[in-house]
Amino acid sequence: MYTSGVERPSSYQRRSKMKSFITNTLSDFFFEYETPRQVLVRNKRVGVVCRLIQLGVLAYIIGWVFIYEKGYQSSDTAVGSVLTKMKGVGYTNVTGEERIWDVADFVFPVQGDSSFVVMTNYIMTQGQKIDKCSEPPNSKNRCSSDADCEGRSERTGDGHMTGKCLVNTTKMCEVLAWCPVEDDGNIPEYVRSLKMMLTLYSPALLMSAENFTLFIKNTINFPAYGVTRCNLVEGIDNQYIRSCLYDPKTSPLCPIFRLGDLVQLSGFNFAAIAKVGGAIGIIIDWTCNLDHDQSDCKPIYSFHGLYGNPDETDTARASVGYNFRYAKHYMEDKQEKRTLLKVFGIRFDIIVRSVATKFDIIPTLTAIGSGVGIFGVATVVCDLILLYLLPKREFYNNMKFKVTETMEKEPLDEFKSEKEVSKE
Amino acid sequence: MYTSGVERPSSYQRRSKMKSFITNTLSDFFFEYETPRQVLVRNKRVGVVCRLIQLGVLAYIIGWVFIYEKGYQSSDTAVGSVLTKMKGVGYTNVTGEERIWDVADFVFPVQGDSSFVVMTNYIMTQGQKIDKCSEPPNSKNRCSSDADCEGRSERTGDGHMTGKCLVNTTKMCEVLAWCPVEDDGNIPEYVRSLKMMLTLYSPALLMSAENFTLFIKNTINFPAYGVTRCNLVEGIDNQYIRSCLYDPKTSPLCPIFRLGDLVQLSGFNFAAIAKVGGAIGIIIDWTCNLDHDQSDCKPIYSFHGLYGNPDETDTARASVGYNFRYAKHYMEDKQEKRTLLKVFGIRFDIIVRSVATKFDIIPTLTAIGSGVGIFGVATVVCDLILLYLLPKREFYNNMKFKVTETMEKEPLDEFKSEKEVSKE
Amino acid sequence: MYTSGVERPSSYQRRSKMKSFITNTLSDFFFEYETPRQVLVRNKRVGVVCRLIQLGVLAYIIGWVFIYEKGYQSSDTAVGSVLTKMKGVGYTNVTGEERIWDVADFVFPVQGDSSFVVMTNYIMTQGQKIDKCSEPPNSKNRCSSDADCEGRSERTGDGHMTGKCLVNTTKMCEVLAWCPVEDDGNIPEYVRSLKMMLTLYSPALLMSAENFTLFIKNTINFPAYGVTRCNLVEGIDNQYIRSCLYDPKTSPLCPIFRLGDLVQLSGFNFAAIAKVGGAIGIIIDWTCNLDHDQSDCKPIYSFHGLYGNPDETDTARASVGYNFRYAKHYMEDKQEKRTLLKVFGIRFDIIVRSVATKFDIIPTLTAIGSGVGIFGVATVVCDLILLYLLPKREFYNNMKFKVTETMEKEPLDEFKSEKEVSKE
Repeated sequence: MYTSGVERPSSYQRRSKMKSFITNTLSDFFFEYETPRQVLVRNKRVGVVCRLIQLGVLAYIIGWVFIYEKGYQSSDTAVGSVLTKMKGVGYTNVTGEERIWDVADFVFPVQGDSSFVVMTNYIMTQGQKIDKCSEPPNSKNRCSSDADCEGRSERTGDGHMTGKCLVNTTKMCEVLAWCPVEDDGNIPEYVRSLKMMLTLYSPALLMSAENFTLFIKNTINFPAYGVTRCNLVEGIDNQYIRSCLYDPKTSPLCPIFRLGDLVQLSGFNFAAIAKVGGAIGIIIDWTCNLDHDQSDCKPIYSFHGLYGNPDETDTARASVGYNFRYAKHYMEDKQEKRTLLKVFGIRFDIIVRSVATKFDIIPTLTAIGSGVGIFGVATVVCDLILLYLLPKREFYNNMKFKVTETMEKEPLDEFKSEKEVSKE
Repeated sequence: MYTSGVERPSSYQRRSKMKSFITNTLSDFFFEYETPRQVLVRNKRVGVVCRLIQLGVLAYIIGWVFIYEKGYQSSDTAVGSVLTKMKGVGYTNVTGEERIWDVADFVFPVQGDSSFVVMTNYIMTQGQKIDKCSEPPNSKNRCSSDADCEGRSERTGDGHMTGKCLVNTTKMCEVLAWCPVEDDGNIPEYVRSLKMMLTLYSPALLMSAENFTLFIKNTINFPAYGVTRCNLVEGIDNQYIRSCLYDPKTSPLCPIFRLGDLVQLSGFNFAAIAKVGGAIGIIIDWTCNLDHDQSDCKPIYSFHGLYGNPDETDTARASVGYNFRYAKHYMEDKQEKRTLLKVFGIRFDIIVRSVATKFDIIPTLTAIGSGVGIFGVATVVCDLILLYLLPKREFYNNMKFKVTETMEKEPLDEFKSEKEVSKE
Repeated sequence: MYTSGVERPSSYQRRSKMKSFITNTLSDFFFEYETPRQVLVRNKRVGVVCRLIQLGVLAYIIGWVFIYEKGYQSSDTAVGSVLTKMKGVGYTNVTGEERIWDVADFVFPVQGDSSFVVMTNYIMTQGQKIDKCSEPPNSKNRCSSDADCEGRSERTGDGHMTGKCLVNTTKMCEVLAWCPVEDDGNIPEYVRSLKMMLTLYSPALLMSAENFTLFIKNTINFPAYGVTRCNLVEGIDNQYIRSCLYDPKTSPLCPIFRLGDLVQLSGFNFAAIAKVGGAIGIIIDWTCNLDHDQSDCKPIYSFHGLYGNPDETDTARASVGYNFRYAKHYMEDKQEKRTLLKVFGIRFDIIVRSVATKFDIIPTLTAIGSGVGIFGVATVVCDLILLYLLPKREFYNNMKFKVTETMEKEPLDEFKSEKEVSKE
């Protein structure tokens, strides 16, 4: 470099020099190769400790990250679609009136969604029309004059308060409502009224609902891998479906479920849940290792109670059971009327949980790369032992480090470090 | 190695040699330990720059990746189930006809799904039967002869064109349809017709809908951690639920919401949304750090408008409001009739967003491992400064690198590099 | 260190020493900098191999991880909401009885959910009431005496067996059911009965359903990035929506779809799917790179058949088509009656698949860090070649490693390794 300062080279010379400089640098770069110089410490204690740490890291990377957690795979969740179909006929005989309930009557909604309700009990109020009538008799909300009926909140009421108190008849406020008003007891008296109701209706619908069957069709698609699977896997054909019934042990892949089994497998008591209603989650678990054959990718069904378990703790029991109101409207004598059903039922939520894993180069190399990094940590730990804990630490320090004493003593630097080098 | 070439050893000797060789190699491997030799550069400028870079990397790894972003945790999303229940009674008085609307009338669907509609306004067309009648009078589609009624598209029409023009009466085409045809104005005149309608019906249902309440029950399950949580968390008991009302400040955990509050919190004007309909998203956010106590895992409710905000820009207003048609069928005089309702309402979509995080060894070690790698980058940056930017770069180069000159000069190689070594 | 053992220093001296020791250590630490010493191997073969491996790793990290897989970005999925609206009028003429089907009749459910059914065919059983009557005539379940009617399962039956055999009339068991019982053939004779039905009804509803249109409104929100997008993107205004129709080539962003197009794009034959029903998935794919402008974040619609494709393999055909039963109740002569519809239809599942990616410092640094680790692997590979495969491996071994022979020979150690050092 200082030679170039002596006389200014011609443009040609400079270009030629530059060219040969680049060529040399490139050939140097390509034909050279750096590898770190290392001290091979022959010390049993440090050697064993360090090798054990390194073996531990290796075992962790290969055994755990790769083999156990399958760190060489990427994963993807599926998008899917669920279709359900109930089968069964219910029969009730309430005070001599025989009734038949088929799927068009007891499933809400009718079109086979992944979340639906099977009616198992009901309070039917027939022939309601919009009129003025008394609130249902109830010891708590008695009124003695019109004044009592004015300040009352309507939020959980049955209709629009007219402000009149029916002092002569029921001693309850008059409401503009669908009359007669449904009498299911007020919420504070829910349990009592429920009991009363159950003695009337309980042996009705629920016993047959236990034998209803549910057919589930579930198709999932893993977009990242272009794989589509259906819960009617290989071997589940028309013939099999016509006769099978799901059983966790003997028929774990049959897509037809008996309601009584579902309730039992989710930890409920059928009689209890059928009376007050409840909710059950049906989980379809697709955990697929797509490095294996696709036909090994099979659904696992599991069931758990969501709401309404009477065995739950006080907190969870804040809202008991599951019910909703449903009206069938009709016209009678030119007047709109309706039949109101307070439906108690089992709500089924079909939840598809899916994860597919497949070999992918990026997580593999990321795992290896960060594994190498952890190897580096092992070396750092051993170095700490070597350089700070061993009695001969100073000796190892000298072995490992070559010191350049260049601080602010510019003219001497070169010389001194030269000396150091030769000393070594 | 060359001694073994001198005379062929016996099989016994070879085996014994091999054995001792393996033993030695193994013991060497276990009792040895390599640590890189390093140059300790005593240069204030480079030292400070390099230490600062290293401290920055350390601060990033510990402060950001570990503490702020909790890189030592794995995460999982939940599967869950939502149940809703509306309470309230609506009252309308349209031209003297008093009507009561209860949950069985104003909630669609009735069974308490996570996505549902609360009717707040309607256009009712009573007594429809299948017949031939005129399209609703409308200045734009007037016909003057049967020819005008033939080429017309039926996509957004009201019925099946008979091809006749009712020249004597309405000057509109005749259709086979549910007659009388609902008159809600054609889409191009939507705003005008809407205004007309609102002057007729607007003070009807919507004012009471503001006080309806919504109860939400949400159970979620994090399968990876086996944790199940319900939005009725610890402390939300039967007693509390009976009296509470959600308020973002004072009762953020009460699962009962007043419709008026929901609309206001999502940025809508209740009167506006009730008239033309709209959609509101109720987001239940479960962000749980399962390294803490489970009871700290509580839902946060938030609300945002999805559609129908009249304050939106032109683009978003491409489709205003939210409405659908709903029919109640009945039989009158042996003939099927229906009451058609064009329902304007608020659609609620309950969206559960969940993520649970928990300490996991794999992300921890991956973070550490890749952090060590970034440390290596810091060393590379410092090396670049040292070897290419400092004035004494050649000196440092000599310190850092030991060169072996072995290129294609095989016989000389050994000697030359030997010389080099001794030179050092 | 051994000097401190000679005489005990005073407390002041020790403190001062300690202080200066810490100061020195700190200043040493800050003004020093370690860089590994390296051997620069000038060997064409090893150099080229190693540089190629390193270039490969670099190309992988920069080209694949960063540019192709965008490893510098974090990703998030969206929460969203879908609203649908069907338009169209169907016309059927079954044995002279003209009927009009509008949206209130042919869409289930009515309120515009993301999963809904469009009725395309039906078996209507009018005037059902709860009564005792015969099962529908059927060659397989003939009875000859009351005994035949007792052991029969009711799971897939039509009603509650009374135990009587109607030997005089139909030779079928008597049931308590909604009479007359719907005759859609038993499942084993599904195909035959289906054909019979289709000859009666097929030219009915389905041809007009092909021209029905579906409007989809989809809003999504990426909570991690605070971005909200709607499928009515920039440029899709009121004007455009009123006239456009989705076409994968010419109008890929128009949110209005013709049913016939949907069916065709998903690979079905409209006539076939309309007859027996089926399910179609409409996938709205939001893959957004939020490093670009938000307005580039546009939905891509795709369609695929879920169930009911008659071209499917035997296994998938285990359950053909899609249908459900739906009842309209009415009151006639003080008696509850119903019209039962077995609805065959196309079920649409709108599936929103979303992923947004955006630059994030953590994945960037993790990728760099683990890339550096993989670089380390390259060096290890080259070292293996250098130290174990090359003919001059012993020479390189000597260059790379400095051995300390300290094993259990404590007094000699120092001396011996001193010698080794000088030998070098």
